[in-house]
Amino acid sequence: MEHLSPSTVFGIIGGDFRQAALAKGLIEQGYSVKIFLLENLPPFLPTELHCNDIQQLQCCDVIILPLPVSKDGSGDILNAPMSGNTLSLSECLSVCRSDTLIFGGKVSSTEEQLAQLFGYTIHDYLKREEMAVLNAVPTAEGAIGLALSERASTLWESRCLITGFGRCGKTLALLLKGFGAQITVAARSEAELAFARTLGMHTVPLSMLSFVLTEQEVIFNTIPHPILKEDLLKKISPDCLIIDLASRPGGIDFDAASQLGLKTIWALSLPGKVAPVTAGNIIRDTVINMIKEM
Amino acid sequence: MEHLSPSTVFGIIGGDFRQAALAKGLIEQGYSVKIFLLENLPPFLPTELHCNDIQQLQCCDVIILPLPVSKDGSGDILNAPMSGNTLSLSECLSVCRSDTLIFGGKVSSTEEQLAQLFGYTIHDYLKREEMAVLNAVPTAEGAIGLALSERASTLWESRCLITGFGRCGKTLALLLKGFGAQITVAARSEAELAFARTLGMHTVPLSMLSFVLTEQEVIFNTIPHPILKEDLLKKISPDCLIIDLASRPGGIDFDAASQLGLKTIWALSLPGKVAPVTAGNIIRDTVINMIKEM
Amino acid sequence: MEHLSPSTVFGIIGGDFRQAALAKGLIEQGYSVKIFLLENLPPFLPTELHCNDIQQLQCCDVIILPLPVSKDGSGDILNAPMSGNTLSLSECLSVCRSDTLIFGGKVSSTEEQLAQLFGYTIHDYLKREEMAVLNAVPTAEGAIGLALSERASTLWESRCLITGFGRCGKTLALLLKGFGAQITVAARSEAELAFARTLGMHTVPLSMLSFVLTEQEVIFNTIPHPILKEDLLKKISPDCLIIDLASRPGGIDFDAASQLGLKTIWALSLPGKVAPVTAGNIIRDTVINMIKEM
Amino acid sequence: MEHLSPSTVFGIIGGDFRQAALAKGLIEQGYSVKIFLLENLPPFLPTELHCNDIQQLQCCDVIILPLPVSKDGSGDILNAPMSGNTLSLSECLSVCRSDTLIFGGKVSSTEEQLAQLFGYTIHDYLKREEMAVLNAVPTAEGAIGLALSERASTLWESRCLITGFGRCGKTLALLLKGFGAQITVAARSEAELAFARTLGMHTVPLSMLSFVLTEQEVIFNTIPHPILKEDLLKKISPDCLIIDLASRPGGIDFDAASQLGLKTIWALSLPGKVAPVTAGNIIRDTVINMIKEM
Repeated sequence: MEHLSPSTVFGIIGGDFRQAALAKGLIEQGYSVKIFLLENLPPFLPTELHCNDIQQLQCCDVIILPLPVSKDGSGDILNAPMSGNTLSLSECLSVCRSDTLIFGGKVSSTEEQLAQLFGYTIHDYLKREEMAVLNAVPTAEGAIGLALSERASTLWESRCLITGFGRCGKTLALLLKGFGAQITVAARSEAELAFARTLGMHTVPLSMLSFVLTEQEVIFNTIPHPILKEDLLKKISPDCLIIDLASRPGGIDFDAASQLGLKTIWALSLPGKVAPVTAGNIIRDTVINMIKEM
Repeated sequence: MEHLSPSTVFGIIGGDFRQAALAKGLIEQGYSVKIFLLENLPPFLPTELHCNDIQQLQCCDVIILPLPVSKDGSGDILNAPMSGNTLSLSECLSVCRSDTLIFGGKVSSTEEQLAQLFGYTIHDYLKREEMAVLNAVPTAEGAIGLALSERASTLWESRCLITGFGRCGKTLALLLKGFGAQITVAARSEAELAFARTLGMHTVPLSMLSFVLTEQEVIFNTIPHPILKEDLLKKISPDCLIIDLASRPGGIDFDAASQLGLKTIWALSLPGKVAPVTAGNIIRDTVINMIKEM
Repeated sequence: MEHLSPSTVFGIIGGDFRQAALAKGLIEQGYSVKIFLLENLPPFLPTELHCNDIQQLQCCDVIILPLPVSKDGSGDILNAPMSGNTLSLSECLSVCRSDTLIFGGKVSSTEEQLAQLFGYTIHDYLKREEMAVLNAVPTAEGAIGLALSERASTLWESRCLITGFGRCGKTLALLLKGFGAQITVAARSEAELAFARTLGMHTVPLSMLSFVLTEQEVIFNTIPHPILKEDLLKKISPDCLIIDLASRPGGIDFDAASQLGLKTIWALSLPGKVAPVTAGNIIRDTVINMIKEM
Repeated sequence: MEHLSPSTVFGIIGGDFRQAALAKGLIEQGYSVKIFLLENLPPFLPTELHCNDIQQLQCCDVIILPLPVSKDGSGDILNAPMSGNTLSLSECLSVCRSDTLIFGGKVSSTEEQLAQLFGYTIHDYLKREEMAVLNAVPTAEGAIGLALSERASTLWESRCLITGFGRCGKTLALLLKGFGAQITVAARSEAELAFARTLGMHTVPLSMLSFVLTEQEVIFNTIPHPILKEDLLKKISPDCLIIDLASRPGGIDFDAASQLGLKTIWALSLPGKVAPVTAGNIIRDTVINMIKEM
């Protein structure tokens, strides 16, 4: 835990609103923060924190790169949509002190190798399990928000199906339970189904999915494999809203769904979209955990 | 309960999407339904149910007028935004059978007197307590939807204040609890505050409201009296979202709030806006309760 | 609120463990406390607080009599099961200062009149609504404790019926929901049934009770009128546990139930039995509310 | 799934009330059941199901041995506390058909090897994860029951610490949340702590446990390692109740706790003790899952 003290200076580079919220979150915890490539700061950040001079990176004990570090994974241009300037990963690292800790999100292997040339490891906070667990909350809230805005009925007393019962599935299921929805959980693992059952939910093995589709009013998929193909989609009511929370390739055959007239939403990367401030704080908490464990 | 049998014929006149959903809800329960002044039917209703001939009202055992019955309360033109035709309350009543039961929502005293001239009582479903209790659900879901779409943080771990702990306040508080929000309830009655406390919420007498305002991130008002005037508004953080769920005159000095740069939303009549299908079913359930008690 | 200050001295007289917990609870909030007729103090109370000299009542700004004040309502002997000494209400009042506030629980009309002779009003905290609301919590926990200890199955997935949906019914229903029980609420008022429905519970009008009895595994009655008479009891399974939480005359024909071989428990006055410390703190909070409103 | 059909005959041998409930649970699902070594049947089982002739095991397609199979793990005497007769595992297996499926709970390696000599595998249902997940429910309810009966305060508003956040910890935490307890979760894994945080609980790394002990009113341990040794026990209030749910060696230094005057309960094997009917049904559901997967 020696890496972290009240005088630790964090350098926050680029990124979107989340990265700005991360900076604010660190300040709220009493750390010193220098901000780079975020000129178009949201109003909650004091402009004097912004550094135009990249040499200031030398003062930073910890540097947090954006998520993703660069859009194409090459590291050529750091991901900085809120800035008019550009910086490459190499330029950045060539300025840093040798004892500076570097963090980033969704670090590509190219970026990793590049960092190693400079003698650094970019610690990827996106790989931490607690980050995934915490991110399930804004994801689930985002999914609820979509269901609320896209439907003409309450979630209360509506029949909701959740496919997959990992982190997102669990958090979403507990939220929906608070709404008084009638929840069915479909999953492969008997242990996960048993856990859903202990929470008072209906359960169905994934292999039996076809038997429960017709009655559903909202379907939330969290499984990143093609689960809902044409044969199953045909069983779904046209009034049903299908929200896919799974990362690529998603779990739904969107073309087939479209031809069947089904309403689908593929909701990717919800945390950064619906709750960037929370998402930024989750990055902060995760990075601080990582530093404490070093 | 003799008024209600499987062969009871309901006449549904005018109104918006809720009234159409009410018709559908009655059909789902097995009743016969005739629809008037709803030509622009939503796709879920079969067009053959629509009657162009007002004389068909004679076949109806129960007639359900819209909410409100007429927009200006005069009864001159029945409220029928989904129709190109018009009908007055007098024209309507002059066709009905003498034993037909008439229901309506938010019946004005003029409409009431008019009906009495024709020998009818218009039973107002909006006055029923169970209707208010059930409508608290779409209201609360609508309020949550606003909070989700208008903020950059999760409701989880956010500090939420609810002023008033009647039907809406209670239902909203329980929903927010499911989100993991940190809830403070402000109310006048010690008994209501005690109930909030049994639910695990922080409580504050309304007279002490000023002491808890600064820390709030979302404020939901349910009290239809000017609670949040300029002096109290000054204590609220500019990052806070204020949602007023109270009917006229509302609980917030919106002008003062605007001058202070506070973000406010006055969310009126949420059930019909965010969940018209549920709102229609709530009208159905309430009217059926009323008939059973006759 | 002028009656209450950090220097307020409370006199606590007689009563059971609740009254001792009340004394402790006041001390924890910083008040001075003198204790009378509670010689057999539980270990958590310092013995030097006990006054053998009744004249010390003159130092007390507020006196809290036990619940009930006297066992037979005559006021002849104050209710003091944890003491070897006796004191009458008259002896007590004749020592008090004229400006002392007197509180008691379940004050009889005889006691009231006696106090008036001395120029006092005994303020009855048991009549306060927030006291009833808060007492619903230990009552509900006590009922859960009975169901857990008397049955061979979990509450999870068990079918539970709650008759009556007042304070106790609501609090108990919400607790059982946390256990994952399948809850049916039977009540007279459509508004209460609607509230139960918003909480995701099954509902049945009290007049239809006979249709849902057979399937129940636990029945909790909260209605203090004979609801479950022989004809209805006959429909209940012999495996069902019936817990009556209603005050006299209770809601169950216990003789008929016994002859039918049904297992019944009449659980009266649970707060003082299962959670006297909490019950004492509830009295404290209620009395302090009452003083603040004076 | 070919092993299971409506005509499948189950043989239930020995065991306690759970095993009897298992038999009843299978009958309720429509299977044929023969019962052995359970002469002292509870009243809910028809006596004609009991077989005195061990040769009847030949008719059984599936045999379910008790939990544990034999008390000393030798297989010499099958565990049959509700019978006056004895039977060895060898005698049992020598009668069975070669295609009979054999299940048992907590099968010892001696029993396993013995079965292999006869050409059988004893499938151990206790090793199945869904069994552990479901058993967390009666365990948690049992723990709640103890906390309710052993304390003088409500769980509501009480400060509860849960050490360990595996299956039992999670289920218990969610139950306690329903009571309105103020829950702190101590665990080693940042991911588990994060999950507890998403559920609205306070969290503390296990290494920081000493900082939160003093304020606790109930401590539930679920970690089967000596967590609470003398140095930490010294920080716990004498009013605190400590319930150890962990299997041997448990998580508490009971001798040290006793010398410090702390109240501890080591609650082992709660499912069979507090909810044998549910425990029997959990065995049934687990065995049926296992057969379906064969």
